[in-house]
Amino acid sequence: MEFDVTESLGRQLIGELYECDPLVLNDVAAVEQAMVEAAVAANATVINSTFHHFSPYGVSGVVVIQESHLAVHTWPEYGFASVDFFTCGDSVDPMVSLKHLTQSFKSNDMFVSEFHRGQRELLVKPDFEVKFPPM
Amino acid sequence: MEFDVTESLGRQLIGELYECDPLVLNDVAAVEQAMVEAAVAANATVINSTFHHFSPYGVSGVVVIQESHLAVHTWPEYGFASVDFFTCGDSVDPMVSLKHLTQSFKSNDMFVSEFHRGQRELLVKPDFEVKFPPM
Repeated sequence: MEFDVTESLGRQLIGELYECDPLVLNDVAAVEQAMVEAAVAANATVINSTFHHFSPYGVSGVVVIQESHLAVHTWPEYGFASVDFFTCGDSVDPMVSLKHLTQSFKSNDMFVSEFHRGQRELLVKPDFEVKFPPM
Repeated sequence: MEFDVTESLGRQLIGELYECDPLVLNDVAAVEQAMVEAAVAANATVINSTFHHFSPYGVSGVVVIQESHLAVHTWPEYGFASVDFFTCGDSVDPMVSLKHLTQSFKSNDMFVSEFHRGQRELLVKPDFEVKFPPM
């Protein structure tokens, strides 16, 4: 699947990962490691990440990357994980991240949708002067 | 717009905010404050947030909430902001967050799409035993 960076500012993959390994989905360290590895595999530059385990089960987390972000929410009790990979530019391929994560979570049933964010034909350049240092 | 929590585990609003105030979009403190306020306005419980200003301009940030997450990426040079509000349960209304943010960013042109995440008809309950403390 080719992505045309001239068409929009950002690219977002929404992945619905069914029939995953519930033990992996409930292990906050494993989920964070899988997400960071997924970012790196796609050639993204990781800025930071924040992950939380919820009681009694489930993990939420975000990896902030130079090229936007990756987010995950897991429901171990349903073997389900919902992931978003939002990237900018053409140096990062979020599909690589999604494939990596599908393997890490051992998903047997996955759906993916792709969206263009910031349609260039709708963008209007405002009268905007860059100030240093940034406000 | 009514959301049926019996249909899916999560609800996601994707907002494309065009013709925003570029000075607000380039002010990392203002963007973070607007996002946290948007979360609180929707009755969400904020866990933490992480925001970054990019050189020469633009802000990326995520607010992790008990009910999932809010994410934003801004392009001040185009007066454009891309936002995602992902929520679980029926105690939080992401549409309230989106309206709040639209006002904070002074957007004059906004598109919103809504997605159900984790379709209940596709979920399979695995053989999963909860362990304490969580792994």
